[in-house]
Amino acid sequence: MDQLLTTSTLYEKYKNCLQEIADIRYATALLQWDQETYMPAGSLATRSRQIATLSELAHTKFTDASVGELLKALLERTDLTEEQRSNLELSNYDYNQQVRLPAAFVRELSETVSQAFNHWADARHQNRFSIFSPWLKKLTALKRKEADYLGASAHPYDALLNQYERGCTSAQLDQLFSGLKPELAALLSTIKGQQQVDDSILFQPYPEDQQWAFSMDMLQRMGYDLQHGRQDKAAHPFTVNFSAEDVRITTRIREEDISYMTWSTIHELGHALYEQGLPKEQYGLPLGEAASLGIHESQSRLWENNVGRSLSWCRYFLPVLQTYFPAQLKDRTPEELYRAINKVQPSLIRTEADELTYHFHIIIRYEIEKALIEGSLEVTDLPSAWNTKYAQYLGIEVPDDARGCLQDVHWSHGSFGYFPTYSLGSLYAAQLSRSLEKALPEFEKLLQEGQFDAVKDWLSINIYIHGRKYTSEELCKRVTGKGLDPAEFMQYARDKYRFIYAYKQEGIVL
Amino acid sequence: MDQLLTTSTLYEKYKNCLQEIADIRYATALLQWDQETYMPAGSLATRSRQIATLSELAHTKFTDASVGELLKALLERTDLTEEQRSNLELSNYDYNQQVRLPAAFVRELSETVSQAFNHWADARHQNRFSIFSPWLKKLTALKRKEADYLGASAHPYDALLNQYERGCTSAQLDQLFSGLKPELAALLSTIKGQQQVDDSILFQPYPEDQQWAFSMDMLQRMGYDLQHGRQDKAAHPFTVNFSAEDVRITTRIREEDISYMTWSTIHELGHALYEQGLPKEQYGLPLGEAASLGIHESQSRLWENNVGRSLSWCRYFLPVLQTYFPAQLKDRTPEELYRAINKVQPSLIRTEADELTYHFHIIIRYEIEKALIEGSLEVTDLPSAWNTKYAQYLGIEVPDDARGCLQDVHWSHGSFGYFPTYSLGSLYAAQLSRSLEKALPEFEKLLQEGQFDAVKDWLSINIYIHGRKYTSEELCKRVTGKGLDPAEFMQYARDKYRFIYAYKQEGIVL
Repeated sequence: MDQLLTTSTLYEKYKNCLQEIADIRYATALLQWDQETYMPAGSLATRSRQIATLSELAHTKFTDASVGELLKALLERTDLTEEQRSNLELSNYDYNQQVRLPAAFVRELSETVSQAFNHWADARHQNRFSIFSPWLKKLTALKRKEADYLGASAHPYDALLNQYERGCTSAQLDQLFSGLKPELAALLSTIKGQQQVDDSILFQPYPEDQQWAFSMDMLQRMGYDLQHGRQDKAAHPFTVNFSAEDVRITTRIREEDISYMTWSTIHELGHALYEQGLPKEQYGLPLGEAASLGIHESQSRLWENNVGRSLSWCRYFLPVLQTYFPAQLKDRTPEELYRAINKVQPSLIRTEADELTYHFHIIIRYEIEKALIEGSLEVTDLPSAWNTKYAQYLGIEVPDDARGCLQDVHWSHGSFGYFPTYSLGSLYAAQLSRSLEKALPEFEKLLQEGQFDAVKDWLSINIYIHGRKYTSEELCKRVTGKGLDPAEFMQYARDKYRFIYAYKQEGIVL
Repeated sequence: MDQLLTTSTLYEKYKNCLQEIADIRYATALLQWDQETYMPAGSLATRSRQIATLSELAHTKFTDASVGELLKALLERTDLTEEQRSNLELSNYDYNQQVRLPAAFVRELSETVSQAFNHWADARHQNRFSIFSPWLKKLTALKRKEADYLGASAHPYDALLNQYERGCTSAQLDQLFSGLKPELAALLSTIKGQQQVDDSILFQPYPEDQQWAFSMDMLQRMGYDLQHGRQDKAAHPFTVNFSAEDVRITTRIREEDISYMTWSTIHELGHALYEQGLPKEQYGLPLGEAASLGIHESQSRLWENNVGRSLSWCRYFLPVLQTYFPAQLKDRTPEELYRAINKVQPSLIRTEADELTYHFHIIIRYEIEKALIEGSLEVTDLPSAWNTKYAQYLGIEVPDDARGCLQDVHWSHGSFGYFPTYSLGSLYAAQLSRSLEKALPEFEKLLQEGQFDAVKDWLSINIYIHGRKYTSEELCKRVTGKGLDPAEFMQYARDKYRFIYAYKQEGIVL
């Protein structure tokens, strides 16, 4: 019967179908946002089942045979626009992935995740891995099963990784990280030989209310649209969207540390600007979605590091900060702030790590989660594996699991294969940033004057408006002229730290 | 095939089905709660479609022929427990009502309501009826259509009324109100002849933050469970639940008036205690729902008026209030507070009205909405009809539509037939309250000592735990020994105001 319909009628049918599924998915996201911000503690079990029902429902609707037939019928049409074809091909890819997962499995995973999240929060709060351990076992088993469902790949982990970064494999990551590790280690070793910078400017009493007021001010100055977004407090910072017209972030504040809130807020801002900049008219369709998680992280890391940890950012924002914290920041200089926020020092917590040691935090997590999924590491042995790797890669001792293997929310969310996208994101960010600086010759001046819209506009044209049209690699090539090249990040890091630590030449790269 | 299954297996199927529909309905409620509390203004259109999709989905799932067949098969079983039979009969009633409404209609109504709400808020804010007028026209037309779908009754309004108060008709309400009006008018006239009480204690500067802190303190002292609930600020006060384990209320604060926040918060508390007290194990099933809106309002009005506007309440809470507002309430007495919060005076705003004139506010709305639905009043003529009735019933002039026909949210929610349940609620509350006082001989002493749990426990046993098992009338008979008797309210009112206005005998009833 579909054969009698015009392409545009049939496409409308597809669009309506996907938009209704999006409505359900975004309602699920609101249930999750609420769970992490305002939900009363006593309603966890019911909330978990509500999330599970909606997740299953969206999955069931999307994987219905009629959707497959509709996609097939449309893809046979010869009068599709380029945009229509892009959407349909991407939906078809998603469909073929999703149909492999039984609805009951989707429900079980969703329900487990919703509960595991709270047990993780509890375990971290109480510093007791044993509270989270049975849930992590359950999640690991489920994710292995998911990898099985998703089908043959060289390594079961690849199937999970592929969900976040299409086409990326553990073989590629192994190669990437094995090239990066000695270079990072060499630079780190050079820096260790220099006099350490003084970051005491960051660690003073910064009252919570003023930090909150500053964060809201900063978000607006950096381009966040509060008509289509908001910030709330939560146990961990995240960005969530319910359409491109409602993109929310969360933050948390530590009163004795201004950096803890500030750069994680800028990180989420980077995510949020991307989501707010996606084409609104593509609501619910692939072209209305982000390209990949690697590209998403490139946006958050670009704002957090390449913009937010720059000297120009400090020159513009120090006077703003001084209006909120006059006593704390009297007579301080942008250079002092710049040095402080770029201090390189192996540390325990990923989200507080400098740009250089950050990659080791990721490499550790990547190696561990790959081992968990392939079964070469048992959940029970996770804390000791974690601590061993922190000693090995960063030379530091992990005092407890709360500051060790319980620090991140990801595994409690069932997100295995997510961590590597942070490193990919940082590498992409350095490369994109180079192109951005070439395109805007007055880049530093613009930042110093607080003209952050120039950055947002460039990203909008080059990244945001394309949605999911291009893969990470294609997008990178379009914008920078070549695929991902970690040398760009290393060059950026060498330039930055040579200036900050004021040495002539870094140690020889091994 | 169902015939081969045991009753308990089949019942489990029914239960799962209804609970999944409840998950969708509660997710919809969260989308609505969020829209009225935290949603950024710019995402209204998308939010409306999300709400519409989920409303339609819940409707489509519930009205599926398979549900009708399942209910039929189960109701033929002879080995049902009493509880199972109750749930099934009520679900069957709901099913037969809901199948009359086409899914597309449910979607249209839901989408219209979500948008109309914001246009109403805008119209009220700008004091311009014309902003809301086209939406009210659209809603009136849709509600007429709904009455048509729901089928023949003596008056189209009855079909809508029946959705809130099953079995109640406009003929009954006409009779009830025509009996009540002269009695209310006579008592009002007597009071008008007395010296007016001084309520200036209420109208002083009461800073917002302290009011908020007091409200949270009060809610806990009066029995609100914050492990399963929360309070937020919104443009208008309401209660919403996402299960009996997550029941939320909203409030709003006026800095120059402590009563504005306080008694509307107690009103919502009354609703919330009911929802928190419903049987948790009946999640998603009729026995896990409130008996009717009339009974719901009896709970809110009982706490607001019979408990909250009592001298005993003032004796317990004045010292609490004094800790929040020492300067404002120094040397004040409970009697002074009691008189002030019970001052009778015809006024513009329903939610701020005393218990006596309150009924006229309801009668006016009832007469108007009935006229709108039957088509004897045009939306364009609403403001003048409103103002005429306020002059006629309450002898006051309405200065503008913001304080006139735009003051209430209900019509923007598409709630026609809702208002009468407030009067019914007040009448039920007075009658229930009499039984409560008989059951707890030390009632006044308990309140004076802040032992509000005694009230909650009595309501729990007599009202909450029954869910929707009994109709309003049945429940009233079970608890008070007779059906609704407005004389109980009149007696309560006469006793109360005779004491407050210190006269010997009220005027002769006409």
